Amino acid sequence: MSKLWSSMAKRAEPYIPGEQINKENIIKLNTNENPYPPSPKVIEAIAAEVGDQLRLYPSPTMDGLRASIAEYNNVSQQNVFVGNGSDEILAFSFMAFFEPGKPILFPDITYSFYPVYAKVFDIPYETIPLRENFTMETEAFFGSQGGVIFPNPNAPTSLYLGLQDIEAILQHNQDQVVIVDEAYIDFATESAVSLTKKHDNLLVIQTMSKSRALAGLRVGFAIGNEQLIEALIRMKDSFNSYPVDRLALAGAKAAMEDVTYFQEMTSKIITTRERTIKSLSALGFHVLPSATNFVFASHDTLSAKVLYGHLRQQDILVRYFGTPPIDNYVRISIGTDEEMDEFLNEIKSVLAK
Amino acid sequence: MSKLWSSMAKRAEPYIPGEQINKENIIKLNTNENPYPPSPKVIEAIAAEVGDQLRLYPSPTMDGLRASIAEYNNVSQQNVFVGNGSDEILAFSFMAFFEPGKPILFPDITYSFYPVYAKVFDIPYETIPLRENFTMETEAFFGSQGGVIFPNPNAPTSLYLGLQDIEAILQHNQDQVVIVDEAYIDFATESAVSLTKKHDNLLVIQTMSKSRALAGLRVGFAIGNEQLIEALIRMKDSFNSYPVDRLALAGAKAAMEDVTYFQEMTSKIITTRERTIKSLSALGFHVLPSATNFVFASHDTLSAKVLYGHLRQQDILVRYFGTPPIDNYVRISIGTDEEMDEFLNEIKSVLAK
Repeated sequence: MSKLWSSMAKRAEPYIPGEQINKENIIKLNTNENPYPPSPKVIEAIAAEVGDQLRLYPSPTMDGLRASIAEYNNVSQQNVFVGNGSDEILAFSFMAFFEPGKPILFPDITYSFYPVYAKVFDIPYETIPLRENFTMETEAFFGSQGGVIFPNPNAPTSLYLGLQDIEAILQHNQDQVVIVDEAYIDFATESAVSLTKKHDNLLVIQTMSKSRALAGLRVGFAIGNEQLIEALIRMKDSFNSYPVDRLALAGAKAAMEDVTYFQEMTSKIITTRERTIKSLSALGFHVLPSATNFVFASHDTLSAKVLYGHLRQQDILVRYFGTPPIDNYVRISIGTDEEMDEFLNEIKSVLAK
Repeated sequence: MSKLWSSMAKRAEPYIPGEQINKENIIKLNTNENPYPPSPKVIEAIAAEVGDQLRLYPSPTMDGLRASIAEYNNVSQQNVFVGNGSDEILAFSFMAFFEPGKPILFPDITYSFYPVYAKVFDIPYETIPLRENFTMETEAFFGSQGGVIFPNPNAPTSLYLGLQDIEAILQHNQDQVVIVDEAYIDFATESAVSLTKKHDNLLVIQTMSKSRALAGLRVGFAIGNEQLIEALIRMKDSFNSYPVDRLALAGAKAAMEDVTYFQEMTSKIITTRERTIKSLSALGFHVLPSATNFVFASHDTLSAKVLYGHLRQQDILVRYFGTPPIDNYVRISIGTDEEMDEFLNEIKSVLAK
């Protein structure tokens, strides 16, 4: 720490992302990336944009991409905000909707970037304990002073909360913004986007990193009432006029429009997920009913820490958090069928020891 | 304004970037973009990265690009920070080095994003009047309470401040961070990067948007003492783990390494700039001695507002600010020789009326 740092720099407790190891033949099941490539139409659209025009700034309003997102989601363009991944949108949301002095609420087991944002922007927070089975107690999120944020499905638990429960939370927080972080929603049943038309305090955030296989391109979006979107635009335009580059704009637009490819890949991953859950259960794992592209699992006799370390030695990366009450769980991203077979075989060999 | 906005969203006064008009055959001299395409090696490097790997997150530490920037600048990788354009780095710098309650100093005529950052992050500021000839009075920046920031060369004035003056400002602000925003430095004589080795309170920020013709790719970088770089990394990792995507990382690295192309294009632009200044002067314009890829000019009998409006009708865009004392100036980005000829011909026809 340096005497030249601001109080903000001093109080920050930065997020540590999952390992990005550059090694051939590694099986990477640790950062919930898509095991399949992006749509060929995405590749074409980007290739067409790689050229002289890179010398020119991108569109600061991103109208083309916003229109495609709006169309897919059956909302109007004024209800759509685009950012550099959903993380940037989360940061802008903490700036735009949460207030120093007014505690916000989020689950105690959840995306570990939330307390990082709260720290840096000086937003007090209370964490709401999940039930022992990791489900959310809806009523505990009623009547917040400063707002509510949670992922749905939740991460790393993989559990989905129904729209009725979300609507109850919205109704009991009418003067606060409720942010539903839907990074994994395309692997679940139903998005809360439809609720944005009835509830002006709901902001839904999604990402192109998971279901649209574009983690490397950095595009996320938010949907909500025009007033909420305007506040996000004000934050962006007070920070960085063009956070999404020309290539990302072109690729994301094509990804949004290739619905057929998106649906095929998503249902393939869901099929592999269900098969993986079955196999892990047969091997004695407790696996939560996942509505995401990962599973959250524990085993009575094989410790998560040992399992994580063993898999790592075999060049299979999974995510291990190591803090109670989830210190006996591993989070395993769903890979291709072949990758999951290798993973399962490795588990069998550990259990046989 | 909505009751759901935070005080930060309410107090924000967003930046308005130069117009991005999507129209064929427009002569775009309004946002200081490079008139020449990026290096062919940049195009190759990006094309090689457009593929399946876009499904994977980029490197959060950006080591490859940082190494190339470090090598070119003769510093070590620990002295380099990379961000989504220099605007994002400026935002992180306001967060990391400036403090609510401690006024910072910047020139009264300067990059108009500075007061925007100050507003949103609640940093008080004092503006230091430029002299009547738009030069900076160095002593007026001594002994700041909260820090100093200025572009060098300054924008929109295009004037360069020598390293001796910068060193004096550093010596008289030893307990504060001094940020030198070198967006246009490659069109001037000498960067302040060399001073970062002697002065641990100096942060130099540069961009790939101007001299490296990559405005569409969103990459900027900062160079400074390791402690300052660490503070910026803490801000990034409290905001967005991966603000620079895979394609931008690949393209920026190639741009940094193709020194020959960069030097050729830069000196071409400087030649056109000098020719443009001569022609404008011959037409009765007062043109400041530019150390950038734009010129700042006024005319005694042709008002800047009228000129701007007339050029716009002819599909030639220049930047007009319209606020005293620069309300009779236009800022003209340097285009190709052909573009500048068309621009100059148009001016001649206005003057002949």
